[in-house]
Amino acid sequence: MAAQDGSVPSATTVNKITHPFDKMTFRLILTNYEGVAGLYDYGPPGSSLQANIIAEWRKHFIIEENMLELDTTVMTPSPVFETSGHVARFADWMVKDVKTGDVLRADHLVKNVLEARLAGDKKRKKKKAVKTAAVVLPDDVVAEYENILAQLDNYSGADLGELCRKHNLRNPDTDNEVGEPQLFNLMFLRPETAQGHFLNFSRLLDFNNGRVPFASAQIGRSFRNEISPRAGLLRVREFTMAEIEHFVDPEDKRHGRFKEVRDVKITLLDRHVQEAGRSTTAQMTVGEAVDNGIIANETLGYFVARIYLFLIRIGINPQRLRFRQHMANEMAHYATDCWDAEIHNSNGWTECVGCADRAAYDLTVHSTKTGQPLVVRQALKEPIVTEKEVPEWNKKALGKTFKQDAGVIQKTVESMDQAELTKLKGQLAQGKAVVTTTEGKEFEITPEVLTVERKTIKQSVREYTPNVIEPSFGLGRILYTLLEHSFWSREQDVERGVCTFTALRRSPTKVLVVPLSAREEFDPLVNEVSTKLRKAGVFSRVDDSNTSIGKRYARNDELGTPFGVTLDFASVQNRTMTLRERDTMDQRIGPIDEVIAVVTELVFGNITWEEACKRLPAYDGVQAVDS
Amino acid sequence: MAAQDGSVPSATTVNKITHPFDKMTFRLILTNYEGVAGLYDYGPPGSSLQANIIAEWRKHFIIEENMLELDTTVMTPSPVFETSGHVARFADWMVKDVKTGDVLRADHLVKNVLEARLAGDKKRKKKKAVKTAAVVLPDDVVAEYENILAQLDNYSGADLGELCRKHNLRNPDTDNEVGEPQLFNLMFLRPETAQGHFLNFSRLLDFNNGRVPFASAQIGRSFRNEISPRAGLLRVREFTMAEIEHFVDPEDKRHGRFKEVRDVKITLLDRHVQEAGRSTTAQMTVGEAVDNGIIANETLGYFVARIYLFLIRIGINPQRLRFRQHMANEMAHYATDCWDAEIHNSNGWTECVGCADRAAYDLTVHSTKTGQPLVVRQALKEPIVTEKEVPEWNKKALGKTFKQDAGVIQKTVESMDQAELTKLKGQLAQGKAVVTTTEGKEFEITPEVLTVERKTIKQSVREYTPNVIEPSFGLGRILYTLLEHSFWSREQDVERGVCTFTALRRSPTKVLVVPLSAREEFDPLVNEVSTKLRKAGVFSRVDDSNTSIGKRYARNDELGTPFGVTLDFASVQNRTMTLRERDTMDQRIGPIDEVIAVVTELVFGNITWEEACKRLPAYDGVQAVDS
Repeated sequence: MAAQDGSVPSATTVNKITHPFDKMTFRLILTNYEGVAGLYDYGPPGSSLQANIIAEWRKHFIIEENMLELDTTVMTPSPVFETSGHVARFADWMVKDVKTGDVLRADHLVKNVLEARLAGDKKRKKKKAVKTAAVVLPDDVVAEYENILAQLDNYSGADLGELCRKHNLRNPDTDNEVGEPQLFNLMFLRPETAQGHFLNFSRLLDFNNGRVPFASAQIGRSFRNEISPRAGLLRVREFTMAEIEHFVDPEDKRHGRFKEVRDVKITLLDRHVQEAGRSTTAQMTVGEAVDNGIIANETLGYFVARIYLFLIRIGINPQRLRFRQHMANEMAHYATDCWDAEIHNSNGWTECVGCADRAAYDLTVHSTKTGQPLVVRQALKEPIVTEKEVPEWNKKALGKTFKQDAGVIQKTVESMDQAELTKLKGQLAQGKAVVTTTEGKEFEITPEVLTVERKTIKQSVREYTPNVIEPSFGLGRILYTLLEHSFWSREQDVERGVCTFTALRRSPTKVLVVPLSAREEFDPLVNEVSTKLRKAGVFSRVDDSNTSIGKRYARNDELGTPFGVTLDFASVQNRTMTLRERDTMDQRIGPIDEVIAVVTELVFGNITWEEACKRLPAYDGVQAVDS
Repeated sequence: MAAQDGSVPSATTVNKITHPFDKMTFRLILTNYEGVAGLYDYGPPGSSLQANIIAEWRKHFIIEENMLELDTTVMTPSPVFETSGHVARFADWMVKDVKTGDVLRADHLVKNVLEARLAGDKKRKKKKAVKTAAVVLPDDVVAEYENILAQLDNYSGADLGELCRKHNLRNPDTDNEVGEPQLFNLMFLRPETAQGHFLNFSRLLDFNNGRVPFASAQIGRSFRNEISPRAGLLRVREFTMAEIEHFVDPEDKRHGRFKEVRDVKITLLDRHVQEAGRSTTAQMTVGEAVDNGIIANETLGYFVARIYLFLIRIGINPQRLRFRQHMANEMAHYATDCWDAEIHNSNGWTECVGCADRAAYDLTVHSTKTGQPLVVRQALKEPIVTEKEVPEWNKKALGKTFKQDAGVIQKTVESMDQAELTKLKGQLAQGKAVVTTTEGKEFEITPEVLTVERKTIKQSVREYTPNVIEPSFGLGRILYTLLEHSFWSREQDVERGVCTFTALRRSPTKVLVVPLSAREEFDPLVNEVSTKLRKAGVFSRVDDSNTSIGKRYARNDELGTPFGVTLDFASVQNRTMTLRERDTMDQRIGPIDEVIAVVTELVFGNITWEEACKRLPAYDGVQAVDS
């Protein structure tokens, strides 16, 4: 009854059927290029599920929060990633497998192979299962490897090539040699969609009438050059992301709608607990977490809560969802606070959404690089009036007295703070003052050249670089985990898997149409029912393959199809049709049009299965007329 | 009144305002990386429009036709494109601009630069405006260039590098020199989504219970390495496509739903007209075109009609839409027939959708390469019973008589057709026969070794490679053209542009909320109206920028926002609000909740503007209370 009451299978159930899950559902839902790791294609139910999740995401975030949607290019000129700081992570030197032509990052190759050798060596030494001396690495080799690893970032392409040759470093996937490192500083395929938001910041701000806070959002493909992609969909080379960049006043990170989510209760694993070496989670409301300073600010808390609500809404098991705070040492230096939504699956706790307060870092680096100001100019309602000591020059006297030194004197005074200016004013009031330049040169000046006067300054515009709160979703990981959380198997037969998407609308196909056989006499009815369902807006699929009705239902249970209708000889004779519910395997019967009406209301969530049962009598099997 | 009655601006109107169109709307809707041609980002209204078009496409094709949706990777292993035949077009040798690092295809560079030189030369010679002899190319250089162009496909990377040096071929965009050609046979970025369908054909067929016809569909990013992208969105390096691969029995290309589109009237430009050097189009129904053999078959005709209906539905002007048939010399050798949906815009007639019958080509090449059969096995209702001459060997006698030649003799006979076998049977009946191998060796055989017998063969399964009908949509071109077709300008001021999307749901924002000013006293009302519209499912946007109401309406007219509501001091005092219609600029007034109810019904298409006017009185300007 999971589809109706929102319950989900327990972790035990899921673990129990991990094997049939892999064997059956995973293959039916996802395909990948044979022999190419890290690239997955979504087949019909998978892409339909993905489209459903994306539609929900767009509704939950973009529409509900009036975000500005963007669609930027995957190909990005390399200077963008030099500026963003990605280049350190997405280095340029690549080597090719000489036989397969696969391209690997040279530094990753060196790192992975040497680390694997060291790890293997350590294991062998620990086990003391040393049969031959040759298996264990000599101490000087261990030291050399460790030295290489420590300075990996400093090697040039030629150095990396030399290392590969000297230490016989091969492609770990094929054991083939690799060629010379080559520079790949062309177009990058983006590793995240975020840079597209920052590059367009001025236009977005303009579109939002120059005001913050506002958020931009983008759903799109990103790429990571994983050396050895593993763990199925959890670590891939190409994936779909959904990212939000919420731009906010650094001095006011409150959120206008925070009160709406204040009472959302979440499971947290904060950094102090982790730094103490523990992993005890705490349950609390987002309001409490923000009030107690566990989550840095309201806006970050607001998004943590919204992420939670989204994940639950699409069917993630809340018992297997936690928010883990980044520890100081794993967070980027510029970030203020960062929380990962981690979802538990057969691979352990898996980061599926990141939510970081990145401060002003991104806009600042792009602005510095391009020389374009990326700032908000806020008209102040009440101009800020301040009194200030201001130097007033007699330029003519200054030039005449100091000639070529006039510039440096002026610069020195202009850069003084208020305390220094007050001191200077006092000295000038005494008749003269000494100004010392940064180079240590001293000049004596008089009130004829300079006076310092107290002035009233009225500031009507405040200029600032907004901070960025960035919720970033890995949709493939979420989809995969949702499959695990939705999958269970029949008590009577552990091999019979069922996918129960807690939200009905998540199911790729809503109704399966099952004629008793593929005989032509059923064709008109199959067409009639399909057409009527389509016109009612219900996505259906016909399974008229040459196998038993039970088997056809079973394999569509795996794909999460919630309802099935069967057309048999009784349908031809009496225009009746049976309706089956997936989780209970309950069957009801009624006139074709009434069954279509009932199933349509079920699909649109207007009635429950219990209510449907009141409208359609139970099917006792008598009505079937086999040939 | 275009939004209500479905009319669209005339070509003249559009041409007249091409300049303000470029200056205003285009910039507001689309942004691109400065300095990088061929890469465009979609800003908020652009991506919202794109999302609307994609949603409509998914509904019109995938849902309505029960297609199997796919989502395959952008990165594709290179052997796929060797097999598909793309490698000839997407060659491996690339050169880098030595200064900018831009990457160009070496053969394209050679071709473009030499052709440009020849064209310039021809023009100069024709004009007879030869001032200095140096401007005109000597005849031997012209001959050399033409010779190079003729054998361009045969050059190696080294040859291409040599050509660039010898003839001083530079990057035409920057006039910089280029480096040595390098091989790029790594991962390709796909130039189309189609290969993903073919690679997954077996799984798709399986998912469809082994039956054809069925169609798969995919919406996704593709890439072309355009040397010099021009013409804005019409020729770009990265774009979103939507492709359908409809698999069909080669012996039965009828379509079950053809009768539904038989009477759709379209404008055709067939190949005979074009081959006669004319471009006179004909108006006819799709039924007539198929009946008269102008369109090759029903399935192709069905999709031509469905493409037409889709384009009209999203707002393309039917007067500026035609279907042009490929001439024999522009069609791939394997294709049976191909029609392009060409839409007229300021760049001329532009191919926006292709619709080709690609026969069995794609599946055949992949099957040949991988050795995997990509066929449909159709269980025949009536087994086909045929009588055939079949060779029957006495293997023992064959081996004993012919020893190591036994194999070749057997192979020769097994490969004979029925006529040859009948002849052989006759000879054997005379006592002996001579078998000649392909190498010309002759062997005399007797009935002791071989007899040929007439047998009855019962074939219960028919095996065939399905044909593919491929409708392929360039969504960026459609979007751009839709903008041109939707744009017009106010009679009273040609600089005041308006975008009228004929289908209301195509508008990125449905309702603009305009407070008289950004004063705090309007904030509660602005929030109330925004929240109520959001809850009603109406996408709205607030424009409280510091400019006149008229200017704010004008710039949102450009973005196609159909309705606007204004909140002023009267709203604060009396809870009234005005409602404005974009095309007529008509304004009505009413209580806030009633205006929200009316505009919601307008947005969902339940009532027309005329009906809305009956529910809300005209606004006479009196109600406004300015501060």
